[in-house]
Amino acid sequence: MSDMMEEKIIEALKEATKVPNQGVILGIGDDAAVTEIKPGYQLVTATDVIALGTHYPEGMDPQSIGHRCLAVNLSDIAAMGATPLWANLIVSLPTVKLDWINKFIEGFASIADQFNVALIGGDTIRGPEFFAVSLQGVVYKDQYISRSGAQTDDLIYVSGQLGDASYGLKIVKDKTVTEDNQLLVDKFLYPNPRIEEAKTISLFASSMIDLSDGLYSDLMKIMSESSVGVEVDVSKLPISALLSDQLSEEAAINQALLGGDDYELCFTLPAAREMEFLETHQSISDPLFTCIGKIREGSDLKLFDGKQDFVISEKPYNHF
Amino acid sequence: MSDMMEEKIIEALKEATKVPNQGVILGIGDDAAVTEIKPGYQLVTATDVIALGTHYPEGMDPQSIGHRCLAVNLSDIAAMGATPLWANLIVSLPTVKLDWINKFIEGFASIADQFNVALIGGDTIRGPEFFAVSLQGVVYKDQYISRSGAQTDDLIYVSGQLGDASYGLKIVKDKTVTEDNQLLVDKFLYPNPRIEEAKTISLFASSMIDLSDGLYSDLMKIMSESSVGVEVDVSKLPISALLSDQLSEEAAINQALLGGDDYELCFTLPAAREMEFLETHQSISDPLFTCIGKIREGSDLKLFDGKQDFVISEKPYNHF
Repeated sequence: MSDMMEEKIIEALKEATKVPNQGVILGIGDDAAVTEIKPGYQLVTATDVIALGTHYPEGMDPQSIGHRCLAVNLSDIAAMGATPLWANLIVSLPTVKLDWINKFIEGFASIADQFNVALIGGDTIRGPEFFAVSLQGVVYKDQYISRSGAQTDDLIYVSGQLGDASYGLKIVKDKTVTEDNQLLVDKFLYPNPRIEEAKTISLFASSMIDLSDGLYSDLMKIMSESSVGVEVDVSKLPISALLSDQLSEEAAINQALLGGDDYELCFTLPAAREMEFLETHQSISDPLFTCIGKIREGSDLKLFDGKQDFVISEKPYNHF
Repeated sequence: MSDMMEEKIIEALKEATKVPNQGVILGIGDDAAVTEIKPGYQLVTATDVIALGTHYPEGMDPQSIGHRCLAVNLSDIAAMGATPLWANLIVSLPTVKLDWINKFIEGFASIADQFNVALIGGDTIRGPEFFAVSLQGVVYKDQYISRSGAQTDDLIYVSGQLGDASYGLKIVKDKTVTEDNQLLVDKFLYPNPRIEEAKTISLFASSMIDLSDGLYSDLMKIMSESSVGVEVDVSKLPISALLSDQLSEEAAINQALLGGDDYELCFTLPAAREMEFLETHQSISDPLFTCIGKIREGSDLKLFDGKQDFVISEKPYNHF
């Protein structure tokens, strides 16, 4: 290796992440880490990998890769309504360039600090470029939100705006980045996990999932786990002005339904609790949550636009 | 993919591992797993990856790869004196062949069952061949054994026999496997993590590490973490008759000192507690533990053979 001993990467990452070692009894540097969970809490563990080629294209800014490998796991922890605490990171790189790794560390450390995550373990190998994180958090005993609690007539809500990130990825792949579309690209490069929002949502939601494979695919997981059907009014989908500027209305709807990498939350809410939820958590001037449909009996995913059925343009995204 | 939907691999693994779901509140199939730790225990987490090329050669039996990716993490958990509970597995494969993956699952499930480990999460991607595990276990509050507790005059013990596995790997790489050396090859293919042994050792040991990079390298980690020196009598190293048959005495000693992949335990013991430890835990007819030296003041790793200094044949192994 040219510039830096690989075994120092995890150590450098640890140094770069300055967060209170909440519950960390023994951190990086032994055979395993030792941590402590307060009474009344349960452990929540998410494990996700991002690999060059599969999850992001060649030449992407290393800072955004560092951000991303933690962000996608934070989004999973958020979708449980849990609080992230401890990260374990596996770094695999064919070669290590000091400048590259320093930017990666900057990206990782920045989001770790933002969400008070301590790096407690890791491993580095020489190999194909990928980054695997196992992220641990806690939730009050039995207060987690799974995918399986949706009930008939519950309302379906999503956070944020959909389709921007996947269209941003397309711009990166097509090498057509301009000043005008940079914000869409940033939505792909720097996903913003909804940790804080999820904590309040989890006080109301009957089920929740984070949107990584695309709304259509991810709704099917709630349907399958909750044994319910779904109807979505595509005219209600939250689509940004930025995306609308780039695409026809129909194309934007398809992007919002089928594009992955949103890392927004999709959750179901008993209709009787909607007002309380919105009054407490929705800003009128800048609404974060959008009702897009409701849970039905059965096992169909019905899309409509006003009174007409809506037909999607292509087969839903498969992450593998 | 030809034979099997990749997203089914983790599901098939889960089906294949039939263990009591000790403390598993919500397992595979949601955004994250939820587990519960009994009061009075701390969480212990080990994270290790094995990759084709870096950790094992092309063409290795998939059953042994499945065994290995969990075994190396079990060995880390053992080295803390902890009890393994929950595994999170990332599978990356360029293509999925049903026969291959079934054998991998057989290997993984078999060792998971042996040590009562429940698979609680995972991710599968299409990519270069590697397997990453984040393994969680528990230990009684503050009863874990780190690398940092070795004291001057403590005795240094190792379990099992050293050098077999790394020589087994050499045999595999050289394609010189025969009936006579198959047992050495098996030591590489199926490492046996010392989970049960570690629990009793941890009642006596002042420090402990598992031997993955080779005794010489791993002793240096105890030295560094404990701020001590070490002396090892190489004539005491536990070397199997099998290895002695293959190598000269000096070559066998070098193999035991420098070869990695032993997945035995190295631990230090206050001399005053040696008799009690051996009386309780050492079988006279089949001794499992061998005293190979002691802790000294300073920061040197001194090797001797009887009264003479011993000089190692090459630079110690670096895992990256």
